[in-house]
Amino acid sequence: MVLVRPRNPLNIGAAARALANFGSSDLVVVAPYEPTWREARSAVGAEPLLQTARAVPKLLEAIGDCQLVIGTTTGARRHCERELISLDRFPAWLRRRKARGRVAWLFGSEKTGLSNDDLSHCHVWVRIPTASDCPSMNLGQAVAVCCYELARSALVHPNAPAIKTSPSAPANVQTLAHLLERTIHILDASSYFTPKGRQAQILKLRRFLLDLELTQHDARVLGAAVAQIEWRIAKSSARTGKPA
Amino acid sequence: MVLVRPRNPLNIGAAARALANFGSSDLVVVAPYEPTWREARSAVGAEPLLQTARAVPKLLEAIGDCQLVIGTTTGARRHCERELISLDRFPAWLRRRKARGRVAWLFGSEKTGLSNDDLSHCHVWVRIPTASDCPSMNLGQAVAVCCYELARSALVHPNAPAIKTSPSAPANVQTLAHLLERTIHILDASSYFTPKGRQAQILKLRRFLLDLELTQHDARVLGAAVAQIEWRIAKSSARTGKPA
Repeated sequence: MVLVRPRNPLNIGAAARALANFGSSDLVVVAPYEPTWREARSAVGAEPLLQTARAVPKLLEAIGDCQLVIGTTTGARRHCERELISLDRFPAWLRRRKARGRVAWLFGSEKTGLSNDDLSHCHVWVRIPTASDCPSMNLGQAVAVCCYELARSALVHPNAPAIKTSPSAPANVQTLAHLLERTIHILDASSYFTPKGRQAQILKLRRFLLDLELTQHDARVLGAAVAQIEWRIAKSSARTGKPA
Repeated sequence: MVLVRPRNPLNIGAAARALANFGSSDLVVVAPYEPTWREARSAVGAEPLLQTARAVPKLLEAIGDCQLVIGTTTGARRHCERELISLDRFPAWLRRRKARGRVAWLFGSEKTGLSNDDLSHCHVWVRIPTASDCPSMNLGQAVAVCCYELARSALVHPNAPAIKTSPSAPANVQTLAHLLERTIHILDASSYFTPKGRQAQILKLRRFLLDLELTQHDARVLGAAVAQIEWRIAKSSARTGKPA
């Protein structure tokens, strides 16, 4: 479970408790407000799990080794370019998916939830089926409900390691992020992006890349192709004297 | 949902939030610590639901009009004389049950959970399937998880009214409590109880009575029989001069 920019130490503590309740020991906190994080860990009766939890500055550091990323959202954002699944239907969705490997489950901050950028890293968006007149759950309770659903459906082992051995294993987030970064580099050099739309276009590319469900092998093949194109562009830039 | 002797205003607030999240508006708090209850209701951003929630001194006042009572417990108490069902199996259990009517779902205090006496009022005990090394959940999170399971399985409408119209409707708690009270009276007069075992024997009788799944009609028939026995004993006491 990954808490992105949580603000309330009680919620961090409650999330840790829920994880312990359902047999998971893997908590990562992204860019917590420093006093909040300190307070959560030093609280009287704090979960032992909080002592081993990692705090990292960037989301990618939390999910780099994961092969499936799930984002929780109330679905209030209008531009839903991705499948939004009710939590109770998530087990069926997961069963249809070929491979899983290491899973990250993202929860946004209490006030704003996950940002568009956070959500663009997710393979699927999950919505807890709350009432339309009171959709937004308390963070600790949302974590507890998701942990319960995972335990109930017994689909994802809370501490499952990444699938590493086979080239047919799903590519992890770090590999895909690297591929996207090089692709953006090429597209910048090719004047593909419009100045205003660049950020939104990158989010779309990221979603597109995730939807391909690339294996490690696929990602290597694509990476080699991208490297060649990079080389070709750099060469031509050197010739014309223009920067790549 | 019924919170029995909650101690932490944050937990009361969190429970109310979970109810609102899952479309329920029915919260009763039994014998709350008075400052706790005041603080929970006056908290900044308190759920509107807390303004309409009832606080009652005794459990029976909270569940009197209910026809099915569910108790949550970690199952740590050894003398489990009642079926203990994992929350994820509760929907199947409920489907097998003939009638439901108005349902009360009990949660005990943060420290001690539900007492043996509280549990003896329950038709079934439910356990959230937590890890054995960290079984005890935070109260607000436990409420959220149970609300989610009810919403997911769509079995119990959160604000369902009691079934009143038919004699074949299940007898409610108040009717059964009254029947038990009169029965105890008779058994006291008949020197049935042992001085030390009286309380435990009463709990057993209550469980036995619940397991009969009496209808309103059944309860009336039994009530009439009990009334006759009471009358007979009172008459003989009057004759012998002994108190009934």
